[in-house]
Amino acid sequence: MTRVLILTETDLRMIVQLDSDAVNCVEQAFAALATKAVEMPPIMRLDIPAHRGEVDVKTAYVPDLDSFAIKVSPGFFNNPSLGLPSTNGLMVLLSASTGLVEALLLDNGYLTDVRTAAAGAVAARHLSRTDARIAAILGAGMQARLQLRALTLVRPIEAARIWARDLAKAERLASELTAEFGLPVTAEADAEQACRGADIIVTTTPSDRPILDAGWLQPGQHITAMGSDAEHKNEIDPATIPKAAPYVADSLKQTRRLGELHHAIATGLVSETDDFPELGAIVSGQIAGRRSRAAITLCDLTGTGVQDTAIATLAHRRAVSAGVGQAIETTKASGDQA
Amino acid sequence: MTRVLILTETDLRMIVQLDSDAVNCVEQAFAALATKAVEMPPIMRLDIPAHRGEVDVKTAYVPDLDSFAIKVSPGFFNNPSLGLPSTNGLMVLLSASTGLVEALLLDNGYLTDVRTAAAGAVAARHLSRTDARIAAILGAGMQARLQLRALTLVRPIEAARIWARDLAKAERLASELTAEFGLPVTAEADAEQACRGADIIVTTTPSDRPILDAGWLQPGQHITAMGSDAEHKNEIDPATIPKAAPYVADSLKQTRRLGELHHAIATGLVSETDDFPELGAIVSGQIAGRRSRAAITLCDLTGTGVQDTAIATLAHRRAVSAGVGQAIETTKASGDQA
Repeated sequence: MTRVLILTETDLRMIVQLDSDAVNCVEQAFAALATKAVEMPPIMRLDIPAHRGEVDVKTAYVPDLDSFAIKVSPGFFNNPSLGLPSTNGLMVLLSASTGLVEALLLDNGYLTDVRTAAAGAVAARHLSRTDARIAAILGAGMQARLQLRALTLVRPIEAARIWARDLAKAERLASELTAEFGLPVTAEADAEQACRGADIIVTTTPSDRPILDAGWLQPGQHITAMGSDAEHKNEIDPATIPKAAPYVADSLKQTRRLGELHHAIATGLVSETDDFPELGAIVSGQIAGRRSRAAITLCDLTGTGVQDTAIATLAHRRAVSAGVGQAIETTKASGDQA
Repeated sequence: MTRVLILTETDLRMIVQLDSDAVNCVEQAFAALATKAVEMPPIMRLDIPAHRGEVDVKTAYVPDLDSFAIKVSPGFFNNPSLGLPSTNGLMVLLSASTGLVEALLLDNGYLTDVRTAAAGAVAARHLSRTDARIAAILGAGMQARLQLRALTLVRPIEAARIWARDLAKAERLASELTAEFGLPVTAEADAEQACRGADIIVTTTPSDRPILDAGWLQPGQHITAMGSDAEHKNEIDPATIPKAAPYVADSLKQTRRLGELHHAIATGLVSETDDFPELGAIVSGQIAGRRSRAAITLCDLTGTGVQDTAIATLAHRRAVSAGVGQAIETTKASGDQA
């Protein structure tokens, strides 16, 4: 008899939040990626154009973690017209020593939201100025909300601006976030205006055309671009990449193919063989992050399997110690016949 | 609220067996692969050498099927020393129109066993002589047992031979299969002897060196090689490939990289650009299978995502109509905060 622990979204929301623990957990995952024999295969991608659907599967094995996750992330863009959310999914947690399924995390994408925002905090902690006070968030969806919270965990944020194509949506979010954080959060109709004087800019949209112009950038700003996780997505003016010092990838292999870097390569501003640091190398101290107050830094996040393995392992450990979830007995009757 | 149906191995053994329905279901999947806009990304592979572990993830979207499966297949080869089976795993079934998770099939690899054996039946139905009476099975594990049963579903099998490196294991299996099928099943100490006069030969081992010599083959024989699903595995003498008429791949893209074909390419007997038919093209009548009584035919099976989607969809449909399984409510609280 083996047992599999089933954790629902409700269970997972109870035991894992976007807080310092989540940020530290994701930070360690990036450090491991730079310093340990992590195995992280290329993302598996299935497209279902007939239903405007796409599925990404990510995984990574991190030495020293007892488990590894396989994450299934579907995005089906006709869903809102059916009254359903576009993104969903689950994580399967397996033992790294036996391959047995330990837990099913039916999170509907919640843990992905948390680990994605946590990566934004890690980027800001290592690349933005320590006195960063003003945040500009481009986009007004779930990640806009979470990325702002992530910044407040690592920097003394005093004010924020929200820009979105849909100003009314930006205004609603700004007023909610003002109440949530007790900070002045304002909606901006103009993206350039939102970015002017901001210490940290986070782009959180699924845009396929740049929403941030390289000409807007001011000395000392840090930008985290977390929207582009597919070939066609592009939030940042490619001219930003050669301007950034440093440009940092979550995974260079991935950003060359999927991230903002991909578009800078496509337009010839950067060569395919140009080397750039990865976030893990900075987190682990192998490479300096911010080198001067005036530098413009850029972190390009495509989302990595190590983040999934890290957050799923944290969730499982907490669920076991809190007695949360439902265990299912599954027989392995290896001698039986099919 | 969305609901996910949890099906355990016990549930799945109750509703899906290796029978004509399973064979027809897998046959239709191969036909779809040849005739429809199937999306089948490359297999995702994660290696964990520290624990002699490997994980394959397969998937495929088949138009006209309402769901698609993502299958996770771990193989951890230290497990037997811990009293655990080497192979395990599960399938996640998602709606092809919304991406919502519909069911979790906690089969511990059972459905993989069934769909793999069913592919052997499909190969024999389209490539072996219709009067094939004698089967030789190389290997004495789970697939040896199942492949013989698969052959009895499609050909008038009257006798079988089992060969394995471990003769005692072959003898035990032969005596069990004699009782199960009411046929004379004998163990052979010599693989060549086992193959002599056989109408169908099925290789079912994880061998990394050929166990079947091209010189042994006789006119009219059909061979199904189903053991090689990774670069290092190799059951068939590469000289067999140019001798086969036709050589048939389950997926040519996969057999060029993982199957017996890969070794024939590596040894220079076949060119990387040589074209060969796929099983689906034969099943759907686009290409002839066996063209003469005397031809030696060979089918190279690496295992495909369409088989997983097909068997998982069958299992789910049956579970729903039989009221089997346990439903779990999972909230999607898209407005909530992380």
